[in-house]
Amino acid sequence: MTRTRRPFPLNPAPWLRRYDRRDLAPDLMAGLTVAVMLVPQGMAYALLAGMPPVAGLLASTLPIVAYAAVGSSRALAVGPVAIVSLLTFEAVHRLAEPGSAEYLTLAATLALLVGVLQFGLGLLRSGVVVNFLSHAVVSGFTSAAAIVIGLSQLRHLVGVPLDGSHPLRTVVDAVTRVGEIHPTTLAIGLVGIALLLAGRRLHRRFPGPLLVVVLGTAVVAAFGLDAAGVRTVGEVPAGLPTFSWPAPTLPDVLALLPTALTIAFVGFMESIAVARALAAKEREQVDPDRELAGLGLANLVAGVIAAFPVTGGFSRSAVNAQAGARSGLASVVTALLVLVTLAFLTPAFRDLPQAVLAAIVLVAVSGLVDLAEPRHLWRLRPKDGATWLVTFVATLVIGIEPGILIGVATSLGLFVVRSAFPHVARLGWQRDEGLWRNLRRYPDAAVVAGVELLRFDAALYFANAAFLRTTVEELLAARPDTQRLVLDLGGAHDIDAVGVETLLALLVDLEQRGVATAVVGLKGPVRDVLDRAHWNAERRAQVAWPSIEHALDAWGIAHPAR
Amino acid sequence: MTRTRRPFPLNPAPWLRRYDRRDLAPDLMAGLTVAVMLVPQGMAYALLAGMPPVAGLLASTLPIVAYAAVGSSRALAVGPVAIVSLLTFEAVHRLAEPGSAEYLTLAATLALLVGVLQFGLGLLRSGVVVNFLSHAVVSGFTSAAAIVIGLSQLRHLVGVPLDGSHPLRTVVDAVTRVGEIHPTTLAIGLVGIALLLAGRRLHRRFPGPLLVVVLGTAVVAAFGLDAAGVRTVGEVPAGLPTFSWPAPTLPDVLALLPTALTIAFVGFMESIAVARALAAKEREQVDPDRELAGLGLANLVAGVIAAFPVTGGFSRSAVNAQAGARSGLASVVTALLVLVTLAFLTPAFRDLPQAVLAAIVLVAVSGLVDLAEPRHLWRLRPKDGATWLVTFVATLVIGIEPGILIGVATSLGLFVVRSAFPHVARLGWQRDEGLWRNLRRYPDAAVVAGVELLRFDAALYFANAAFLRTTVEELLAARPDTQRLVLDLGGAHDIDAVGVETLLALLVDLEQRGVATAVVGLKGPVRDVLDRAHWNAERRAQVAWPSIEHALDAWGIAHPAR
Repeated sequence: MTRTRRPFPLNPAPWLRRYDRRDLAPDLMAGLTVAVMLVPQGMAYALLAGMPPVAGLLASTLPIVAYAAVGSSRALAVGPVAIVSLLTFEAVHRLAEPGSAEYLTLAATLALLVGVLQFGLGLLRSGVVVNFLSHAVVSGFTSAAAIVIGLSQLRHLVGVPLDGSHPLRTVVDAVTRVGEIHPTTLAIGLVGIALLLAGRRLHRRFPGPLLVVVLGTAVVAAFGLDAAGVRTVGEVPAGLPTFSWPAPTLPDVLALLPTALTIAFVGFMESIAVARALAAKEREQVDPDRELAGLGLANLVAGVIAAFPVTGGFSRSAVNAQAGARSGLASVVTALLVLVTLAFLTPAFRDLPQAVLAAIVLVAVSGLVDLAEPRHLWRLRPKDGATWLVTFVATLVIGIEPGILIGVATSLGLFVVRSAFPHVARLGWQRDEGLWRNLRRYPDAAVVAGVELLRFDAALYFANAAFLRTTVEELLAARPDTQRLVLDLGGAHDIDAVGVETLLALLVDLEQRGVATAVVGLKGPVRDVLDRAHWNAERRAQVAWPSIEHALDAWGIAHPAR
Repeated sequence: MTRTRRPFPLNPAPWLRRYDRRDLAPDLMAGLTVAVMLVPQGMAYALLAGMPPVAGLLASTLPIVAYAAVGSSRALAVGPVAIVSLLTFEAVHRLAEPGSAEYLTLAATLALLVGVLQFGLGLLRSGVVVNFLSHAVVSGFTSAAAIVIGLSQLRHLVGVPLDGSHPLRTVVDAVTRVGEIHPTTLAIGLVGIALLLAGRRLHRRFPGPLLVVVLGTAVVAAFGLDAAGVRTVGEVPAGLPTFSWPAPTLPDVLALLPTALTIAFVGFMESIAVARALAAKEREQVDPDRELAGLGLANLVAGVIAAFPVTGGFSRSAVNAQAGARSGLASVVTALLVLVTLAFLTPAFRDLPQAVLAAIVLVAVSGLVDLAEPRHLWRLRPKDGATWLVTFVATLVIGIEPGILIGVATSLGLFVVRSAFPHVARLGWQRDEGLWRNLRRYPDAAVVAGVELLRFDAALYFANAAFLRTTVEELLAARPDTQRLVLDLGGAHDIDAVGVETLLALLVDLEQRGVATAVVGLKGPVRDVLDRAHWNAERRAQVAWPSIEHALDAWGIAHPAR
């Protein structure tokens, strides 16, 4: 198989090269629909990230345009997203006080770093790294992160400054300080949640967030509830984005780098999953490298306009696609509408209650907790279920950044451990199919008299070479009369230096014990390495055969396969 | 294949259950030979570990007996060993001043921790963990560690307190301070090295270390060279081992734990490699769990007699075997002779020059640097050569503990990355062998007209599921007329949830494109998971066939295999 070269990911997106005018109306409609959703969500996720609401609006302007200019997905809606906002808060609040000027600089620096990493990896065509995040890890992580996010919003919903240092502490604090709840704040929040849920039931594109923002602001303004202790967003300064280099110090960069890597991966993973799901419906392709470059560009822009990290989010992208988005122009329309909001409408948010924004976040993340998935995974393959559970618990208990790393290590670790104890099978001839089959699964398959047939189902390498040896020794110990052994390595698609050494030593050993041995089914890559190990032609001709039948024929043994 | 249960690793070693009296004479001889080597080496490795020489003698008494009581190797000689001593120094000198009472406590605590870990892992039958240390990692690490050890001895050889904070600094310091060399010290060291090398040439069991110790001590005493600036071992207190609990604090335990884990693994790995090599000559088996338990017991004892971590060493074990050791009794004899030395002979070491001990260490580790191995590995399989090089450079430059961890991560990482981009092959019929073969390797194999045969050579799991999809799509893009596709998964010995989902989605996709598809060669473990995924019997009967021939027959396509 030859790998086709994909086009360089930095030429403009297809819709910029040739725009079909028939797409204009649906693009305008979709852009408007997403903007109506994005303005409240952007402010809500900004608060989640420890940023002022205006930063959420800024992040929803030029970064979106930057993605649209390069990205390959037609309908992906980039902007502030819950999990990336939480990761931002987790990293930056350890270095500076949320709301301080330093905090803003660090958040912008983080966006810049994420941008550099994603953009660089895109140019290096490293989009495939996303494949190392298994679905079980992503699902377990997302469910746990959604719970952490939900708990972080509780303080705004009940009007009590709950301890946010650990999810468990938040829960305990919420229970023990139940008497401090601010009833009006809670009422606003609960009504908001009810309206959002009801609106979502009515129609998927129902502008619930806009409705609760308008209603909540109107109620607070009409009854002067901010004087009664309902916390509001307060003054949101008007103004368009301005460019400024965050000018980070080297220690800050180093402190933010691990989180930047995590956000670069997690943000990309979330985004590409959404983009692929949308593309599949349209029977289109998503280019991972182009997506990485596009998201990187978006984050670079977010970094220089004093915003914070962004990525492609699930809910807004779904709405975008459903509203008929045909190209990146929809995103440009969205960005323009947010710019208009920034320029003229920010005074309207002064009386917007924080409880309403919390309600928006809570309803948005509630759908991310998926407890059916672990049950499904457990039934299908217990190891995948265990990976889900480990990731979920680690994210919830240890922290969201270590959580996903532990998940990745667990999923890859289980794969490596599995390869160290590979599947092996003694074979017999299954007449109906005309194939050599595992005697344990096909007990009535015919054994070849006087010959043991052993199939080894894994790449032979350092972690399982000793296992092969032990397996052969146990087989011979259990059947000491064995005079002939056929070792079927058809399932070994690779071999390393330890594997070569073990195999050759095993052959010498078997010869000394008087057990005639054949090695069959060697694949090309394995033959190549054995050739380089000076497994000379003469020796090889005595031992290696293309198939079990060839080996038995060479020994002159009658067998059922003929 | 059923796995046979191995006996519980804590019943006494075979030689304790039934001792053959004919083994007595060779055991006595071997025990004496090793003791003659161990007394000077024990003191030298104690200095390397930052311990007083007497601790090296203590470590060569009861810990050896503890191993002999449980271990499964006849000839393994346990005691202080260069690499483990260096690891001990690296960890403990960061927490306390070498030579201080606190340092001694910490070193004993480290031995205790190593003992608990090894003993526990032995009881849990986790001896197989050693398989995850690939030969390339072990070889690269050993070569680099030997260089680090050699450089650490330079200060004793030239009589200048060289900077030991980093191997490169030691080299620079040695070059720039060449004028400060103490000529008498250097002369003693060089003569020692010459005698050791000459002795080794004469006979493998030549008691070189004893000879240079006796000669060096005599020369220093006769000419009063300690007054002339030749540094000696000084007063070595007499006395037998006493039991005392090191009583570590929890922070100390936590600080030592990572190193304890490293020593537990590295020590075990070195020991089992030696034990296996010796057992292979005698056509015997080594039980890894029993070895772990035995080494653990030895380190537990080392911890409570104020010594430091031990393991089975290469050179003394080889001498032990060559001198005729038949059982653990040889080790007991060695331990008794060291006890006698401790009780009566320590005053004799007062004038023993440190340069002689440095010479002993230098000659012992010089054989560990193996630069032929990386060349061999590189030729055989460049990935294995790269693993060697990464481990070697990381150990030398970053440090010996991170070095081995980086090596292990590299070796496993390369395996995982390989599995993410598996070998795939388009197949054709190779008439001479009567087998389906890779068309790239067998260009004259016969293609089946109108059918693409694609073999995927790896377990299908999250890291390569996207690769399978891309491969099929590229194949169809290159041959848009393809109407039938046979996907040979005979090389896939496992499948995970992502693999199942990808495979089923691919089949739906191909059906919608009008490409008739067959999946052949599914192995038992893969069929099990697919069954649990509700791949219903009806659907399966349409798509899955035992072999390529079955699929082609079902389609009614003439093919060369009949």
